[in-house]
Amino acid sequence: MKVAILGFGTVGVGVYEMLENCAGLEPGPVLVRPGKEDRPFKVSSMEQIVNDPEVSAVAEVMGGIEPANTYVTMALNAGKHVVTSNKALVAAHGIELAQLARLKGVSFLFSAACGGGVPFLHNLAIASQSDEILALGGILNGTTNFMLDAMQSEGKDYGDVLKQAQALGYAEADPTADVSGLDALRKIMLACAVAYDKLPVDGFDREGIESITAADVADFQASGLTCRLITSGGPAGESVYAYVEPVLFPANAPECSVVKNFNMARYNGKNAGAIVLMGQGAGRYPTASAVVRDLCGLGALEMLRPACAKVQADNSACAHPYYVRTDASRAGLFRFRESRLIGSVLRGVTEPVAVPAMHALANKIREEGGSIFFAAMEA
Amino acid sequence: MKVAILGFGTVGVGVYEMLENCAGLEPGPVLVRPGKEDRPFKVSSMEQIVNDPEVSAVAEVMGGIEPANTYVTMALNAGKHVVTSNKALVAAHGIELAQLARLKGVSFLFSAACGGGVPFLHNLAIASQSDEILALGGILNGTTNFMLDAMQSEGKDYGDVLKQAQALGYAEADPTADVSGLDALRKIMLACAVAYDKLPVDGFDREGIESITAADVADFQASGLTCRLITSGGPAGESVYAYVEPVLFPANAPECSVVKNFNMARYNGKNAGAIVLMGQGAGRYPTASAVVRDLCGLGALEMLRPACAKVQADNSACAHPYYVRTDASRAGLFRFRESRLIGSVLRGVTEPVAVPAMHALANKIREEGGSIFFAAMEA
Repeated sequence: MKVAILGFGTVGVGVYEMLENCAGLEPGPVLVRPGKEDRPFKVSSMEQIVNDPEVSAVAEVMGGIEPANTYVTMALNAGKHVVTSNKALVAAHGIELAQLARLKGVSFLFSAACGGGVPFLHNLAIASQSDEILALGGILNGTTNFMLDAMQSEGKDYGDVLKQAQALGYAEADPTADVSGLDALRKIMLACAVAYDKLPVDGFDREGIESITAADVADFQASGLTCRLITSGGPAGESVYAYVEPVLFPANAPECSVVKNFNMARYNGKNAGAIVLMGQGAGRYPTASAVVRDLCGLGALEMLRPACAKVQADNSACAHPYYVRTDASRAGLFRFRESRLIGSVLRGVTEPVAVPAMHALANKIREEGGSIFFAAMEA
Repeated sequence: MKVAILGFGTVGVGVYEMLENCAGLEPGPVLVRPGKEDRPFKVSSMEQIVNDPEVSAVAEVMGGIEPANTYVTMALNAGKHVVTSNKALVAAHGIELAQLARLKGVSFLFSAACGGGVPFLHNLAIASQSDEILALGGILNGTTNFMLDAMQSEGKDYGDVLKQAQALGYAEADPTADVSGLDALRKIMLACAVAYDKLPVDGFDREGIESITAADVADFQASGLTCRLITSGGPAGESVYAYVEPVLFPANAPECSVVKNFNMARYNGKNAGAIVLMGQGAGRYPTASAVVRDLCGLGALEMLRPACAKVQADNSACAHPYYVRTDASRAGLFRFRESRLIGSVLRGVTEPVAVPAMHALANKIREEGGSIFFAAMEA
């Protein structure tokens, strides 16, 4: 089967190379920008791809919503399978694209959009056919995991590890999408859609890693705890819950063994129990391997089923105790299970607080010019 | 699709219940022993199942090689898909059964035979289509992991944790297959067949957990190490390597977070990188969930491909440093990197030793009436 590739950046090159060595698949034309057709297999017109009868599938790895959406729509309309690594595209137009694919009798798969090389969405799609998924989530952003791990293993401060991540190419010049938790949130949107036929588009709570300091690390490390940025999703009545926040884990939690820029995805099946998947969440070959894995399974699996619809996330029933570091003057805002005052800094662990309430409180403190770091305590 | 079930023990009941709640699948007749047909859906004749035109697939969860092999052969000859949890059957007759399935245009899948609820073989089969699997293995026996974890977390001795595992139903009255590493070895045989088209049937090295003592645990724990029973496989020229032995890991290895009777499977893809999968390796619903997952993916995947052939395992190129506890009189048999003599007990870490050489040395010491515990040091 000949596979056209849209985009020839980091992932596109990886997909091209893997297709050259994969039995049953071969690389077809590669779409590049006009003027960049420096090799015979590169083309700059999407028409050439959709009109090529030898091309049976298209791998979209260009990123961004447009022109990706237009091109993917063209490919599906031409009866070609589509595999994409583009989480923004799937979050914005996935339901419509999956409907079009169904109409045309082809596949629309996007394993690489969540977890990189970790075979998460694929397994989630299979598990959700036969099992009830009670919860899902994990460490879905490698950049922030690299930064948190460096802070905790080397005692470095936030600014230093951010520079290090940028120097290594793990973080972008504007790291906001990663460090604010937005990237991880987009991934949980897709996972909820696959597992629950519900794509949450609003109503999230999101706390990234921008507030953590070396002093915070030293404090919770003294209690044997490890911090990870965790994305959580699950059923919530007629909707789903979906949020991102730092979480503190005891030493033998699987999350603690996820180091550097690795990812960990998990789901809890009513029958299968807790299933944990770890691997590289980004990078040329890990991400390409997820694209190619999807290409090997075309026709076998539907990731977004006909019932999939957009919903408003509902986190109101989610609650945990939180580790909090804030200004002493804010003490009255929390019901602490235990707390300590060190100069003007208050540290403590709260009684269980609803996730939206905790995030709202932190936003309020920051709006008023105050300072806060918080992390859920893993039960 | 109606699915007949062969066997109505722990796993069979779980499969039946899951099929009642799985869209697109429903339970058909269940084969039980004559005289046990106490419900209308139970039958005692395999002919009734193979001659039932409504039955499209058969789930074999009775275990043992016969009559399972005869029944599975009958089902395949009748053009019915077969899914099995029976590792002994697949190790003994899998290649022939897969050939028959291919001839009849049906599937022969066995995810549940390796890793229980952990989706290992399924992912390995997919990954091996498009990636080069550089190594595979992990913690594939829940009984021994429960015992090792209890020894290390509670300081108990081997005999006590064995009794505890038997009382909880994790270990059988005769625990030999588990504690000797035989069960784990059978699983790596299947994993090698799926990943490399090579089913190793001989030439293994196998060390279980029968020699570990509370004193050994105390000693390596003082160095921050954790012991797990690890099954390893990988390519070895025209053959594969395959062996089972205790391994000591540093604190933040993912293996250390595998507690109780959980399993962890891993593979290392040339492109995907290290992929780690954790979950429950046994039990009614986890194992049934693997059977049902295979039933949901019939026709999409071949686990044993046409090229699959039996080989002699070749471990000669595998070598590690080993932690060794033995009698002081045996000191001359090892090249120690570091060692200590405490009374008549010698403890130390060797220079790298080939796996077959280390296992042969231990066998020799035991044949001569000596005592030894050894565990590979994770690099």
